[in-house]
Amino acid sequence: MKVLHTADWHIGKKLHGYDLLPDQAYILDQIKKIAKDEAVDAIVIAGDLYDRSVPSEDSVRLLNQTIADWNLTEQFPLLAISGNHDSATRLATGAPWFNQTNFHLHTRLQEAFTPIEMKDTQFFLLPYFEPVDARIYFEDPDLRTIQAAMPKVIAKIQESFDPKKKHVLVSHFFVAGSSKTDSETKIEVGGLDGINGDLLKDFDYVALGHLHGKDALKMENARYSGSPLKYSLSEKDQTKGVWIVETETGEFSFRELSPLHEIQELQTSFEKLLTPAFYSTINREDYLSILLEDRAVIPNLMNQLRQVYPRIIQVERANGFETAVETRLKTENIKEKSPISLTEDFFTEVSQNELTPQQKSWIEEGLHTILKKGGEN
Amino acid sequence: MKVLHTADWHIGKKLHGYDLLPDQAYILDQIKKIAKDEAVDAIVIAGDLYDRSVPSEDSVRLLNQTIADWNLTEQFPLLAISGNHDSATRLATGAPWFNQTNFHLHTRLQEAFTPIEMKDTQFFLLPYFEPVDARIYFEDPDLRTIQAAMPKVIAKIQESFDPKKKHVLVSHFFVAGSSKTDSETKIEVGGLDGINGDLLKDFDYVALGHLHGKDALKMENARYSGSPLKYSLSEKDQTKGVWIVETETGEFSFRELSPLHEIQELQTSFEKLLTPAFYSTINREDYLSILLEDRAVIPNLMNQLRQVYPRIIQVERANGFETAVETRLKTENIKEKSPISLTEDFFTEVSQNELTPQQKSWIEEGLHTILKKGGEN
Repeated sequence: MKVLHTADWHIGKKLHGYDLLPDQAYILDQIKKIAKDEAVDAIVIAGDLYDRSVPSEDSVRLLNQTIADWNLTEQFPLLAISGNHDSATRLATGAPWFNQTNFHLHTRLQEAFTPIEMKDTQFFLLPYFEPVDARIYFEDPDLRTIQAAMPKVIAKIQESFDPKKKHVLVSHFFVAGSSKTDSETKIEVGGLDGINGDLLKDFDYVALGHLHGKDALKMENARYSGSPLKYSLSEKDQTKGVWIVETETGEFSFRELSPLHEIQELQTSFEKLLTPAFYSTINREDYLSILLEDRAVIPNLMNQLRQVYPRIIQVERANGFETAVETRLKTENIKEKSPISLTEDFFTEVSQNELTPQQKSWIEEGLHTILKKGGEN
Repeated sequence: MKVLHTADWHIGKKLHGYDLLPDQAYILDQIKKIAKDEAVDAIVIAGDLYDRSVPSEDSVRLLNQTIADWNLTEQFPLLAISGNHDSATRLATGAPWFNQTNFHLHTRLQEAFTPIEMKDTQFFLLPYFEPVDARIYFEDPDLRTIQAAMPKVIAKIQESFDPKKKHVLVSHFFVAGSSKTDSETKIEVGGLDGINGDLLKDFDYVALGHLHGKDALKMENARYSGSPLKYSLSEKDQTKGVWIVETETGEFSFRELSPLHEIQELQTSFEKLLTPAFYSTINREDYLSILLEDRAVIPNLMNQLRQVYPRIIQVERANGFETAVETRLKTENIKEKSPISLTEDFFTEVSQNELTPQQKSWIEEGLHTILKKGGEN
């Protein structure tokens, strides 16, 4: 049968403070279009549907609308698991009813051991779990890590293998040897090294979630789908999309997604950035990381840039600053200076200008008020 | 048909800091037993299933287990709405699938206008809504309050009346003239006076939620079910339970519930409270409000009482205090006293004892250290 494999939606995630919900709604719609164009028999979602265990109301609305549309309106069977970012308990709301329309959402370890059978394939939906879940399930106090638990989990799954069927594992873990990006959780999943890829060898396909790059792991029969959007600057050069898998042959191929807004890195001067001849050539709506070639301090920099570029995620200096502000302030003997002359020095360092007499008199007044108040206590 | 009417579960509510989840699980199980004993055709839940818009994971687990048990295992049709304590968006998770098994959960105003038909009855499930929802739905900017909106809402509902059927409204509002208790929300629902009871006259039964006493409103065809548990001290004398309604005849009668722990008020002396002959006669596991007859200050009072009574929700003095501590401390000229003599006075006031020489020397040492440190800054 033909399956679409996606994961790591992280609904509700923000990118440097920018709300990604419109981008996420847009990309989920594109995934649906691919599922329809490819006429897949099922859609696999391998965990981290939400970005947080307690998602915002707007995030809940987007996920609820998406799954109702895909499963009830479009009638795609859905095979989903909870990831480490999801609250298994919250995500499970409604799950006992979902089964009735071929929407299988597994959030607990023990659910992995009951295969979901569709056409020629058995699906084992193994959600993200904690070592304690394995200790309880197997009644084995020695299972202190996911690595220790996983051989038992996989062996238990294999007990249900029907040799006449294909076997697909849907899971959400770090497989040893995979490569990471910045937007994945920093907390290691169950240990330092991830689980051993050899454990996965008996499956016809392993649909993984957790890592955000589609090329994070290259095994013959296993892939991370990656996130459908770039969730950090370190993912800017990744190709995002979904896998289309033929379980009969074990073949899979990638379908690319085009985001509502790209992540772009720009390196140029401040002056050029504000020149129409320059900015008319680029997509100003993109999420931008700017490497500024200027070395001077530029007052009101961000506000000026945001007039032209509404989605700046960071600004850095390609060549450093003209004056090393911090170093000078540290090396001078600050304690011997008066408050007014410290303030003057600071202003000059940062703005490269002298205080006007009017500015100086305002500062003197302010300092006078502050210091007087301090003395009263 | 025969219907069980309950409301205001407030799953996750705490009573003076005590977690009520075990009490709630216990009482929900009792409601299920009544439904089975009475062999009702449906269970109506008139809003405030949760106590907060973002319930805890444990609360989510209890509600999810309860509705799955009642609807999927016991196969009771459920007719539910969101109340002002629920997040309509979060509560709606799964709702499009629930319908398949006769679980109708309405969380948006417009859903009230599609009747749910079962046997001889049309149910109109009108969730709690905000005036803005009515303004948008009716495209009428003048609907600034719930009172202003309600005549339009009821008229719209009545457009769908099938004259051959009985008509039941399920709703969650304050009806004018009802009486309140402390545990209901202090924020008025859409205005000061509540909605006009006359609007409800054409229904065969109105199953209300919002107020916590079953006797809060006494109309011929309308009742609040009240909360299934006492959620504040002011509810201690209320009888809690559910209504059993015959929609054919419009008759209804009450079935009482027995909580896991009662709320009790005790008035006696401290000495007696700690006497086995006294406390063996009462249920020490109850939630207790204690009116202490003693007038003396009792050191370590709460800790001593909690050794015997694990669920004290408040302690008050029946006859005030022996010495008016605050008054004396206020009227004396505090500023002229030394820190050590102020501390001595305070100790004597509160404990009714003099400081021992050892205690006094400890205090002197402490004060010395504090005052010395203060001088260094």
